[in-house]
Amino acid sequence: MLSVLGFDSLADLVDAAVPADIRQDTPLNLPPALTEAAVLEDLRAIANRNVVKTQMIGQGFFDTVTPPVVLRKVLENPAWYTAYTPYQPEISQGRLEALLNFQTMVSDLTGLEIANASMLDEASAAAEAVLLMHRANKKAKDGITLLDADLYPQTRAVIEGRAQALGLDVRTADLAGGLPEDLAGELEAQGLCGIVLQQPGDSGRIHDHAAVISQAKDRGAMVTVAADLLSLALITPPGEQGADIAVGNTQRFGVPLFFGGPHAAYMAVPKGLERQLPGRLVGVSQDAAGRPAYRLALQTREQHIRREKATSNICTAQALLAITASMFAVYHGPEGVTAIAEHAHRQATRLAAALESAGFTLTQDAFFDTVQVSVPSLARTVVTAAEAAGVNLRLVDVGTVGISCDETTTDEDLVAVLSAFGAPRESLDAGGAQGGGEAVGNDAGRPAQERIPASQRRSSAFMTHPVFNTYKSETQMLRYLKRLSGYDLALDRTMIPLGSCTMKLNATAEMESISWPEFCSIHPFAPDHQTEGWRFLLGDLEEKLAEITGYAAVSIQPNAGSQGEYAGLLAIRRYHLDQGEGERDICLIPASAHGTNAASAVLAGLKVVVVATAPDGTIDSDDLTAKIEANAGQVAAIMITYPSTHGVYDADVREVCRKVHEAGGQVYIDGANLNALVGLAQPGQFGGDVSHLNLHKTFCIPHGGGGPGVGPVAVAEHLAPYLPSAERPITSAPYGSAGVMPISWAYLYLMGAEGLTDATRHALLNANYVAKRLGSTFPILYTGETGLVAHECILDLRELTARSGVTAEDVCKRLIDYGFHAPTLAFPVAGTLMVEPTESEDLAEIDRFIDAMVSIHAEMEATTPETLEASVLRNAPHPAEVLTADEWDRDYPRSQAAYPVDSLRRDKYFPPVGRIDGAWGDRNLFCSCPPVESFESADPQEAADSATAVAENVESSSSVSH
Amino acid sequence: MLSVLGFDSLADLVDAAVPADIRQDTPLNLPPALTEAAVLEDLRAIANRNVVKTQMIGQGFFDTVTPPVVLRKVLENPAWYTAYTPYQPEISQGRLEALLNFQTMVSDLTGLEIANASMLDEASAAAEAVLLMHRANKKAKDGITLLDADLYPQTRAVIEGRAQALGLDVRTADLAGGLPEDLAGELEAQGLCGIVLQQPGDSGRIHDHAAVISQAKDRGAMVTVAADLLSLALITPPGEQGADIAVGNTQRFGVPLFFGGPHAAYMAVPKGLERQLPGRLVGVSQDAAGRPAYRLALQTREQHIRREKATSNICTAQALLAITASMFAVYHGPEGVTAIAEHAHRQATRLAAALESAGFTLTQDAFFDTVQVSVPSLARTVVTAAEAAGVNLRLVDVGTVGISCDETTTDEDLVAVLSAFGAPRESLDAGGAQGGGEAVGNDAGRPAQERIPASQRRSSAFMTHPVFNTYKSETQMLRYLKRLSGYDLALDRTMIPLGSCTMKLNATAEMESISWPEFCSIHPFAPDHQTEGWRFLLGDLEEKLAEITGYAAVSIQPNAGSQGEYAGLLAIRRYHLDQGEGERDICLIPASAHGTNAASAVLAGLKVVVVATAPDGTIDSDDLTAKIEANAGQVAAIMITYPSTHGVYDADVREVCRKVHEAGGQVYIDGANLNALVGLAQPGQFGGDVSHLNLHKTFCIPHGGGGPGVGPVAVAEHLAPYLPSAERPITSAPYGSAGVMPISWAYLYLMGAEGLTDATRHALLNANYVAKRLGSTFPILYTGETGLVAHECILDLRELTARSGVTAEDVCKRLIDYGFHAPTLAFPVAGTLMVEPTESEDLAEIDRFIDAMVSIHAEMEATTPETLEASVLRNAPHPAEVLTADEWDRDYPRSQAAYPVDSLRRDKYFPPVGRIDGAWGDRNLFCSCPPVESFESADPQEAADSATAVAENVESSSSVSH
Repeated sequence: MLSVLGFDSLADLVDAAVPADIRQDTPLNLPPALTEAAVLEDLRAIANRNVVKTQMIGQGFFDTVTPPVVLRKVLENPAWYTAYTPYQPEISQGRLEALLNFQTMVSDLTGLEIANASMLDEASAAAEAVLLMHRANKKAKDGITLLDADLYPQTRAVIEGRAQALGLDVRTADLAGGLPEDLAGELEAQGLCGIVLQQPGDSGRIHDHAAVISQAKDRGAMVTVAADLLSLALITPPGEQGADIAVGNTQRFGVPLFFGGPHAAYMAVPKGLERQLPGRLVGVSQDAAGRPAYRLALQTREQHIRREKATSNICTAQALLAITASMFAVYHGPEGVTAIAEHAHRQATRLAAALESAGFTLTQDAFFDTVQVSVPSLARTVVTAAEAAGVNLRLVDVGTVGISCDETTTDEDLVAVLSAFGAPRESLDAGGAQGGGEAVGNDAGRPAQERIPASQRRSSAFMTHPVFNTYKSETQMLRYLKRLSGYDLALDRTMIPLGSCTMKLNATAEMESISWPEFCSIHPFAPDHQTEGWRFLLGDLEEKLAEITGYAAVSIQPNAGSQGEYAGLLAIRRYHLDQGEGERDICLIPASAHGTNAASAVLAGLKVVVVATAPDGTIDSDDLTAKIEANAGQVAAIMITYPSTHGVYDADVREVCRKVHEAGGQVYIDGANLNALVGLAQPGQFGGDVSHLNLHKTFCIPHGGGGPGVGPVAVAEHLAPYLPSAERPITSAPYGSAGVMPISWAYLYLMGAEGLTDATRHALLNANYVAKRLGSTFPILYTGETGLVAHECILDLRELTARSGVTAEDVCKRLIDYGFHAPTLAFPVAGTLMVEPTESEDLAEIDRFIDAMVSIHAEMEATTPETLEASVLRNAPHPAEVLTADEWDRDYPRSQAAYPVDSLRRDKYFPPVGRIDGAWGDRNLFCSCPPVESFESADPQEAADSATAVAENVESSSSVSH
Repeated sequence: MLSVLGFDSLADLVDAAVPADIRQDTPLNLPPALTEAAVLEDLRAIANRNVVKTQMIGQGFFDTVTPPVVLRKVLENPAWYTAYTPYQPEISQGRLEALLNFQTMVSDLTGLEIANASMLDEASAAAEAVLLMHRANKKAKDGITLLDADLYPQTRAVIEGRAQALGLDVRTADLAGGLPEDLAGELEAQGLCGIVLQQPGDSGRIHDHAAVISQAKDRGAMVTVAADLLSLALITPPGEQGADIAVGNTQRFGVPLFFGGPHAAYMAVPKGLERQLPGRLVGVSQDAAGRPAYRLALQTREQHIRREKATSNICTAQALLAITASMFAVYHGPEGVTAIAEHAHRQATRLAAALESAGFTLTQDAFFDTVQVSVPSLARTVVTAAEAAGVNLRLVDVGTVGISCDETTTDEDLVAVLSAFGAPRESLDAGGAQGGGEAVGNDAGRPAQERIPASQRRSSAFMTHPVFNTYKSETQMLRYLKRLSGYDLALDRTMIPLGSCTMKLNATAEMESISWPEFCSIHPFAPDHQTEGWRFLLGDLEEKLAEITGYAAVSIQPNAGSQGEYAGLLAIRRYHLDQGEGERDICLIPASAHGTNAASAVLAGLKVVVVATAPDGTIDSDDLTAKIEANAGQVAAIMITYPSTHGVYDADVREVCRKVHEAGGQVYIDGANLNALVGLAQPGQFGGDVSHLNLHKTFCIPHGGGGPGVGPVAVAEHLAPYLPSAERPITSAPYGSAGVMPISWAYLYLMGAEGLTDATRHALLNANYVAKRLGSTFPILYTGETGLVAHECILDLRELTARSGVTAEDVCKRLIDYGFHAPTLAFPVAGTLMVEPTESEDLAEIDRFIDAMVSIHAEMEATTPETLEASVLRNAPHPAEVLTADEWDRDYPRSQAAYPVDSLRRDKYFPPVGRIDGAWGDRNLFCSCPPVESFESADPQEAADSATAVAENVESSSSVSH
């Protein structure tokens, strides 16, 4: 490979590619590489410093059983966890179906028509709901937003932080009795934008929200209800109570506690609000042959496509966890989910009765699974006694103990809780109720819904679609999961050369520990002395990431790249405010930047000023100077990506940083491309004040089919006080998506200082090899001053497209026939493909890709605008059903369609559907599981007809996520 | 389903199907069902009663690292572990390739041309080698067999037991100095059949076997060498030393210790002996289009096809473990395997030097990884001290300690060992050698092969095939494993309705615990106080199996059904001998019996007399009486299967048992069909004296693509003293394949008494439903007196075959096009298919199968002998490459070939090859990985040409394994 590139050594190549003035002087100060066995042993020792207790703390996190078949075949299966976001729907039908199941489950349970494909966490979902109300409620957009006092404290804290950054007027009040009298005047004057309720409340209480919802609606306000999804099997769903938005967590649908995350939160809205929904939305469309086919709907809402249509800065979801939760629902079905909800309720009811009979007072009569007990000044004593008996309870305040039951709560657990209250074993069911069951299913026939007021009981059916009523044995479930995963292309079959996405190996040894109980069964609010292992690992990870990036401090709380951006920009904003420079609210962003950057800036309270890009792809130096001068004294920051989104190490990055610093601004270096820097250069040392990283790119957390992402934020010393923390959170859990951090931790220790640097060197080598080999057929759009690229390269197809009519999208679809996932399409430049091979691919796989591209190039050369529509390229990809049809009237033979290169005869992937018509689906929007008949008749119109078709022509597109 | 069958309740159906006089009166005395969570918690508690130490005991079992990607993607992947034996090669190309890799690895390392696809364990493989020498060495078949004194004790014990049963003259002698002088006379008189050597020896010594091999050959004897496979990377292989047979274990190629098993043993022979090889042999052939394709070769050697050509009673292998070991070799390649061998050797060498410098004396100079140290009367003290330091050593005798190094041995382990000898840390490398490495790969450059005599060093290359030199990153390995598994049909895609094989669900919760270190990292010879958990679980399992079968005692040692048969019949034989009735040596076996039965009887020293089958499929009562009378006083036993191999509950089983008992014989009831009895009837109570069970059928151990099997033997009180034990073993390890027993244990506790019985009832329901629905198209060959079948049914195709020419094999191949694994073909009756749906399949899947069979029936009806050759049936199965060919000149359209029923359009499996020509492959026998070019040219002749083609026309066949 080096000889193709004309270098004698890898070191020479690196020296030529990376500007000397940013190179770090010394090797990374990290330990040397360890073997897999040694790292697993170390992880085992760390895990053993955590203490697993029965978790009855609640507060938004509940224990649950991940069905073993789902654990092993989804959460632990590379076919699912190494998949990319389903932007190429033809090779993503399996995970799209799973996510559609998720949406249907949420929609059914919440009673709202449109649910998205998951949110990052419950608290930030609630914050997004507040923003949505401000976007959608145009009449009252400057009105007050009222939060009920009975929200989870973390939900309130996150909403308040987000509102403060944007200057929204958000207040907390007790809404149990209706809108507060003491705010009547202000509400009258300022208007009421929306209210946020929670059901059941933080206290466990089931509220009757009818009055306050009615009052709020009368004032033109919108209503958000944060609802426990499991409880909705038994209590009236938000949609039936008039809510406009429902949000919540789906964690207790089979997703481990994970010390707080990652979990899939949800958001659902009624028809009419779907275009305001943040996040991803899976919908039903049709393929070229009219088969029903799934794809992401309304993609232009997503921030990264059309900045002007962005609904939020979120550009990932929690796909892997959403899929897990959806499969829990598929497996258990409505009866099973109801039985689980009834079990949790029944155990709470029996516990409540026992405590009451023992003389204790509960703080509420109506509850689902959580009770709070008044114990004047003895709360800590009770909680400590419970811990000694093996159970974690919630210390609400000095006089109140919270207890949450769940799917796993056994009678022994209840007895242990009672013992902590000094109540004897016999007090359970002393009132005459029947004896308990060991687990769900063994306690049938016992009274349920005792403590759910009649007015709040659910009567409507849910999850009636066959998908929730078919796969009821493990055998069936196993085959369903296998079939779905068989539809998809993930890293376990092919390289995924997505520029800017760093689809590298997610090693099994890195993945193993995340499902160990000592990591995954820890409650995020468990006492510190039970979580020493977790806190050591996370602290150590932060320290190592600081060393790699050259910054002073890191927070791993942000649970997506977008959240890291927001946190970093917010730190800058707050720093300026504390410096008395509140007028600094301009964020300079290069034209080539990822759309999220701008959206995040806005959310952090900054204004975006765009800096032009020079013809060579670098930042236009003159324009930068001009923009700084035009905004003198107001520049808060510049936000750049390095290497740039053009895949090039701009030589003048230090100069750019200097200019902004001189102007009093801070430098934010987006870490999206850190895979080109680790061990070679530190953004914190060549000019950055803050960066966010993407652990799901550079540090091996798998993409999970579109999440979890983890976006730690790293800052220089002066910004450290402004990092997110448990006290100033931006996510539900103090450590964000802690559950997947052992993956990155293991990666760092497996690689060691030299290994990490070597990975970067090989990423450069692979990208430059691709650029060199393909450059003669597809021009490389940008290279650095030495003619080299960084860790990725942009193939410019525009001239070829102009000549042949064949688009870059056609090439992406045709690559499927060659067994490849497409490179990044149309980012950062329309009409191009961005290729990032990463260090994980070997020469054979890279050559296979190059051979495919060269072959496609020849196909393009043979195509003209006249022959385009009938060409093998425009008609790609080719499913087996098409290729085996009795009739064949195409202009090209079947063999060219199926086996354009010989190696495919030994190893061929057939997509389950042909090219999908995204626009058709957006015009006929349908976002729940389609009726089974639609597949039999192969007429998706029927599916669409049975829902309301939203008639709006929206252009669809593919792109890239951060 | 019941209404189709005309019954009101399941109980009514069961009452009608199962003869009243065998029904058990009381429910099973087993605990009630537990949840998955509860069973896993119990297993965790049991596991925690085992103690994990660094295992340096050796004696045939060595610690190793299972590469995580292999652990997760093979051992823990249902695509591999739920697959059946590859009798249907077209849907088994993935596992066949893996097994061919195994054969190539063994062949290369041993230096012998033909290796089989694995043996059950090293000791029984050595016993099979002794039998092979007696079969093959026709000139000296009654000669003496000499075992070298330096064999593993368990190897010697198993050989001696087997020899004793057959009356072979086997002696042990020290062969280190050549053939023993004191036996010269006897050898002269009686002849020398063969010798069995071990390299390195049990003592760890590397022997120079040249002299004794030469002497033995001069006397016309054959030579077996039991060799440590890893050591063969460094020392001269048996094949280069003149051995005729090499046997050994492949455990240390990445397979966990598993408390002794299951592990894949191996056997290799030179060209010319391949037809004498026991077990399975994978070979290369070609498919209908001339593509290279794998399949089992020379199947007629296997006992279950042609009794008269049987080479042993073994009819399973250790496929899953062989595949694991082969993937270890594929991943590490020759360099990696050599590095691992060098690491083990280097650590042993350094330890030896340190001990010598501390004044200790080793019992040998030349060794590979194992040293023995003389410590007059202090051995127990040293072993105890080592245990306290975290290391298990081998207590050889009061004055000798054995220490084995391996892939995992760290310097800290060596220091711990030295401390047990009172030697300081500094004694390591005190002689000037360089410091140690933490693990393989970190100690490069240090001297290797120090203690391997120059004359014994290996110079030849091995594992040079590209398959061992390509997949060197986890990314590549993951994709290779995915590609192979994608070729195959296993339970994770479809029902496998194999009569007599009971392909039921292998639940994830049952599988989980087998890879916990507390189970899988325990050495079989660890001290009892470290293995309390294991011994509790195994004892409890034996107890529960005794309750289910109605016997007094159970031994779980037999590691295959065939071994259980052998053990059970041997118990009968020994009982008669102890009763002074040695003349009782006749075993009555019905004509319909599985071939293994007869082979096992012969191996237990019994003579087989066949009893005729009546036209209704039952035992011919008159013939039974006649045979008993004809052999009066000589009847040792009758061996029957119940329900019979015809899938029917014979009503007169008690009468058959009574007759044999009256004649002084014992009754052996083969437990192959126990899935039709559990909870309903106990063989130990309706007439049996002994049964073996198949945990891989009735009790959920997965088939693993052809092993592991587990065949516990259950006996009445009077036979209990004759069960296999640690003192009288039939396998290498005292508890056989302990490692997979938690699967069956979990199954019993998950199901509980009622659940187990319910499973049986549903197995009956499903089989009878199939019989009823299909009976009108395919006559059911046998039914019981009430017109019902048991848990399986035989579809009689003979009349249809006569009419159309379409064979039962054609139907099997055509079922692949429908996405099904074929039922059992031609057993027990040629021209038929035996279908066993098991209780794990739901109505939808059963109906899908019925629909496929009905559709195939219509295709048969449309076929005549004239149209047969061009028919869709004879040309089945249809790979994608065939269906997408540019030209199509068949008599049927592509759509009929690919999508004969509509549901296939949503879920279609394409076999990677078309119908395979087994006979061609047997005529052109080639049993190692074929050259890569053979796939490029699609000309398997090239592959065959590069090996010696064995020109013999052997008929191939498919069948069923016990």
